Amino acid sequence: MIPNMYKIAGELTSTVFHVSARSLACQALSIFGDHSDVMATRQTGFGLLCSNSVQEAMDFALIAQAATLESRVPFVHFFDGFRTSHEIQKIEVLSVEDMKAMLPDELVFAHRRRGLTPDRPMLRGTAQNPDVYFQGRETVNTFYLQTPGIVQKVMDKFAKLVGRTYKLFDYVGHPEAERVVVMMGSGAEAMHETVAYLAGKGEKVGLVKIRLYRPFSREAFVAALPRTVTSIACLDRTKEPGAIGEPIYEDVRTAIGETMECDKTRFSRWPRVIGGRYGLGSKEFDEQMCKAVLDNLASAQPKNHFTVGINDDVTATSLTVDPSFRIDYGEAAAHCAMFYGLGSDGTVGANKNSIKIIGDLTDNYAQGYFVYDSKKAGSMTTSHLRFGPALIRSTYLIRTADFVACHNFSFLEKYDMLCHAKPGGVFLLNSLYDAFTVWDKIPAEVQQQIIAKKLKFYVINAVNIAEELGLGARINTIMQTAFFKISGVIDTAVAIDAIKQAIHKSYGSKGEKVVKMNIDAVERALEGIQEVSVPGRVTSTLHMQPPVPPHAPEFVQTVTGPMIAFKGDDLPVSAFPVDGTYPTATTQYEKRNIAVKIPIWDPEACIQCGMCSVYCPHASIRIKAYPPSHLENAPKGFKSTDAKGGGNLGGLKFTVQVAPEDCTGCGACVEMCPGKNKQEPDRKAINMEWQAPRREEEVAHYNYFLSIPDP
Amino acid sequence: MIPNMYKIAGELTSTVFHVSARSLACQALSIFGDHSDVMATRQTGFGLLCSNSVQEAMDFALIAQAATLESRVPFVHFFDGFRTSHEIQKIEVLSVEDMKAMLPDELVFAHRRRGLTPDRPMLRGTAQNPDVYFQGRETVNTFYLQTPGIVQKVMDKFAKLVGRTYKLFDYVGHPEAERVVVMMGSGAEAMHETVAYLAGKGEKVGLVKIRLYRPFSREAFVAALPRTVTSIACLDRTKEPGAIGEPIYEDVRTAIGETMECDKTRFSRWPRVIGGRYGLGSKEFDEQMCKAVLDNLASAQPKNHFTVGINDDVTATSLTVDPSFRIDYGEAAAHCAMFYGLGSDGTVGANKNSIKIIGDLTDNYAQGYFVYDSKKAGSMTTSHLRFGPALIRSTYLIRTADFVACHNFSFLEKYDMLCHAKPGGVFLLNSLYDAFTVWDKIPAEVQQQIIAKKLKFYVINAVNIAEELGLGARINTIMQTAFFKISGVIDTAVAIDAIKQAIHKSYGSKGEKVVKMNIDAVERALEGIQEVSVPGRVTSTLHMQPPVPPHAPEFVQTVTGPMIAFKGDDLPVSAFPVDGTYPTATTQYEKRNIAVKIPIWDPEACIQCGMCSVYCPHASIRIKAYPPSHLENAPKGFKSTDAKGGGNLGGLKFTVQVAPEDCTGCGACVEMCPGKNKQEPDRKAINMEWQAPRREEEVAHYNYFLSIPDP
Repeated sequence: MIPNMYKIAGELTSTVFHVSARSLACQALSIFGDHSDVMATRQTGFGLLCSNSVQEAMDFALIAQAATLESRVPFVHFFDGFRTSHEIQKIEVLSVEDMKAMLPDELVFAHRRRGLTPDRPMLRGTAQNPDVYFQGRETVNTFYLQTPGIVQKVMDKFAKLVGRTYKLFDYVGHPEAERVVVMMGSGAEAMHETVAYLAGKGEKVGLVKIRLYRPFSREAFVAALPRTVTSIACLDRTKEPGAIGEPIYEDVRTAIGETMECDKTRFSRWPRVIGGRYGLGSKEFDEQMCKAVLDNLASAQPKNHFTVGINDDVTATSLTVDPSFRIDYGEAAAHCAMFYGLGSDGTVGANKNSIKIIGDLTDNYAQGYFVYDSKKAGSMTTSHLRFGPALIRSTYLIRTADFVACHNFSFLEKYDMLCHAKPGGVFLLNSLYDAFTVWDKIPAEVQQQIIAKKLKFYVINAVNIAEELGLGARINTIMQTAFFKISGVIDTAVAIDAIKQAIHKSYGSKGEKVVKMNIDAVERALEGIQEVSVPGRVTSTLHMQPPVPPHAPEFVQTVTGPMIAFKGDDLPVSAFPVDGTYPTATTQYEKRNIAVKIPIWDPEACIQCGMCSVYCPHASIRIKAYPPSHLENAPKGFKSTDAKGGGNLGGLKFTVQVAPEDCTGCGACVEMCPGKNKQEPDRKAINMEWQAPRREEEVAHYNYFLSIPDP
Repeated sequence: MIPNMYKIAGELTSTVFHVSARSLACQALSIFGDHSDVMATRQTGFGLLCSNSVQEAMDFALIAQAATLESRVPFVHFFDGFRTSHEIQKIEVLSVEDMKAMLPDELVFAHRRRGLTPDRPMLRGTAQNPDVYFQGRETVNTFYLQTPGIVQKVMDKFAKLVGRTYKLFDYVGHPEAERVVVMMGSGAEAMHETVAYLAGKGEKVGLVKIRLYRPFSREAFVAALPRTVTSIACLDRTKEPGAIGEPIYEDVRTAIGETMECDKTRFSRWPRVIGGRYGLGSKEFDEQMCKAVLDNLASAQPKNHFTVGINDDVTATSLTVDPSFRIDYGEAAAHCAMFYGLGSDGTVGANKNSIKIIGDLTDNYAQGYFVYDSKKAGSMTTSHLRFGPALIRSTYLIRTADFVACHNFSFLEKYDMLCHAKPGGVFLLNSLYDAFTVWDKIPAEVQQQIIAKKLKFYVINAVNIAEELGLGARINTIMQTAFFKISGVIDTAVAIDAIKQAIHKSYGSKGEKVVKMNIDAVERALEGIQEVSVPGRVTSTLHMQPPVPPHAPEFVQTVTGPMIAFKGDDLPVSAFPVDGTYPTATTQYEKRNIAVKIPIWDPEACIQCGMCSVYCPHASIRIKAYPPSHLENAPKGFKSTDAKGGGNLGGLKFTVQVAPEDCTGCGACVEMCPGKNKQEPDRKAINMEWQAPRREEEVAHYNYFLSIPDP
């Protein structure tokens, strides 16, 4: 779009692009958020207006539209991809009346009159020669000079109308701050709460939030800074290799330099300016990192061109982060809940609904953020929910949760979920085992944490309930009900009512039967929750599994493995290839092991059509025909039958084998199995069975199966 | 290409893009040169290496290639579109041996080994999640930190090998300069000669030429600046509306700011930094503008964010330029020649050949630059040729020429060509009239200048000679010969020999006949040149014509008109629409009048097939059938015949009429005329005749023709 943006701006065509700012593909693609894409357009002549939160995304959408109509400068209104675009927040929704009031008809008509029409022919898209192009290019100056004033005027009108006040540059913090951070985007919310907390304790720190980044008003920027400022840290959520520094840093240096040249008395002394990068590709930016930025400013020789949020052990750009720093929210602390679900199991949808319930039924603010793996369906999703009496500015993941729910039993041995549980918190497990038998079925490491943190431990067999009710893999309503029952965030009866209303609304169009299934699920969930009586000591012989097997190559052990185990944030810069070049054929070491049920072959019912193998979307059902001699050393229970069809297959044995750790349990094989056994026409040759009790044996069978040579 | 550039750089793939930097379409498209396109890529991670001249374009192409292979950082090697890409200069060509020596085989092999191949499978193009993308992005830091050192090392190796020395930032000027300009591109050559001239006269001025703009080495930049500098002007050949300033300006501010923070004693005081724009869309940047930039730096309150080269009467950004400033080159002054030709008449090609002849046969440097109208064929081309004993750094058009040639007689009444003639210079006119009759055929304004400037005035009837020899409109060889004969830049006999050799080389493959025609053209030209004995006073009753008629609308009078008359550079910013919106239907006011011959209709031979009108590419032959009553008031000589075909046409009259001032004289109508008159099968109904004697009458006929209503 960049070439078009020059043209749109050059022709002063009012427009707003609403952009969920995302990263760019460099050493690797990233679908996640930072300002790299927006910064690639900063020279086009578009205005750039940044909103930092979900509420601001709505407010600034309207402000940008009003400003572009009056100024004729086109705008990119942007906000952080994922962190803001995918965050659920309780906001005040602007009404159509607000919008009408902000967008005067005469400006709309004037815009329309500038449209090309044969009724009033005019010419655009000319070519200009060296004699006049430069003059033509300078005609827009007046418009750019006026735009900051217009945006502020529009913001003031908005404030009068709606009550929320914005400035081109908003200052937060100590009125006599010496250390000031300048930034924009969702990270400014985290910085806001950190600065407010520290300034409240008397520290002379402050924050300038850039709202209007282009046209950049030097005057408004300098006016936002306290006169007492002595050092400024500019935080850029982008990287421009080869530049002296990133864009905000260079702009702030320029603004300070120009100011000091024309008004030497504006500040107590020429403020030191440094710059740093954070949050690339949606890298976390939390209150500890904010604190690290402010600490760096306080040092005698602050590190310039720093990074924060990673460990750069190669060029030593990274700041040290103090993991013990916490903001004490006191009474206003939010209730934090984390949910580990499987992609497409409905967990995320249910959590969004829970936020709506709490937001609608109480005065609480509510925030939800959902971490998806880019593997999408079948991988882990983590939901981070906060509810509390104060506006929630924590634009980062929950590290310490009051409530942790594991919606998939198989996660227990792979992911350390309870490291996020607060001492005395609640742990809810979707479990095939009931409260009396579950304890010995969970890994020793999990037991250890439950005991040490004195967690309340609940189980519910949501898979069983869902299956019995005909809901298949959709365990969401059951787990949501369990959450409300045991978390105590709001009165259970009220919540259950709301869930039921939501069910009517969501499933009403699908018929009575579906509605009833879900209402039944709520009831069954309420009955099915069991508290586990936690023994005083670790008893399990099971242990958490390493993410990749010990025979995997070194790179897979040291880089891929931690990434699979969700420990990728801890990997230092030196761990990574400099040019994005990776070894191949490494997926074989990732055993995702996510199937709750796996297909088991029934040799007697099989007509050997091969449909199960052809249709398996994950290539985890395989077929072989082989000489009978290979059965001599086969493990106990390894299944086989005579190969059908004669010819080349005459005298051979035949096996259908599942790869139990690669299977996702989707059941496509069962769907496709024709099961045309004459005697029992309804009997399928492939049937789903619980994975857990079968796994060990099937893994052994699969490994033996792999060792049989292809014919 | 921008998205791909991030990826190429992120993967550290060695490559060089050689870019002729051009403007971008904003309020209007411009095919001409500035740095807007290159600046749109400065954040991608590519290295940016800028060459300022034709010689440097070759040198830096090699240096960039050597640097990318060693550093793995990809490069954009760029130079100014048109000013450098289309300039002809005498340069030292690098040999294949030089190239081999600069590109070590092992680096080439290493590059090839990084290619993707199934023989050594590796994976690129991965997707990274928030856990690791940021770390991956920072892996390239080392490479960018090393690149400036590598580029300097490569430049040093080049200097040893070839003898031309370059630095990352090259300084020119007074060793204790107080006022310093920072810039890159062809404009730096004009600034170089201005600074060198003024510093030679003791003025404390200097110039830093940026060679390696990305990665930007702050250390190397600061090292290039004299410690005595007190004020710096940064010149950007791009515009970024809404930014505080343009890229070089912000980078220099950042570099100076960082330096002053870490080493307060580097400069005698904190240098003032200002920025300005010049040369957008190939706007001229000459020694007077260079002087204006240096003068601005000397003022107590230098204008910041200025423009130079235009008159910005709206936002008052422009600097005042002193039109009396000239660089006195003394002995080293170049011979300057200007040629006004018609697009596709061969003038430009012949001039390129003349430069080659002078460059090859003498020790002189030679430079040629050619101004094309974007109308291409059929519009005016101006050739600017300089020849001299010193390296020519004048990267701007000739304003005062020793020799002016007008290759098209019709230009005389439209363009003021002699304003560029030096007093006592030479004027060569391609004329239908000989030395004895021409004087009274040229406009009074031209006579006036010839007399006032005491010009030597020569004519040659190149059109006639070309036609007689069968060369058609290709008058180039004839005019080239005339130039060498009367300009005296080199010995005529030597030049004629060289022209003849060039003819053999250029036309040899087209056969003896074509070669002979051109050789004959040389001989005929030598005979055909006539010096005009210039009378002491203005005698002509002819006058130069306004570019548009007096009844044209105001916008056409005040804006389009001066542009047509090549006075567009004088138009101020206020003359232009702010958003590139122009009135329509204005081409009717531009009577280009470029046809040397026009088609004249022969009613008796016409079969009224209409082919002439259908095929005319310029829609300048038109046909009408009308009642005989319209002939009553027709002007004398208005041609008409009975309409053929009966039916609706029965009893009507019929006319084919040329629009003599719109016709380009291409002759397509004659080509297409079937001329199937039974009695005289070779007689065409359309024939080309000299325009000049027929124009007045045909214009009257055409205007009357227009007044006849369509049936």
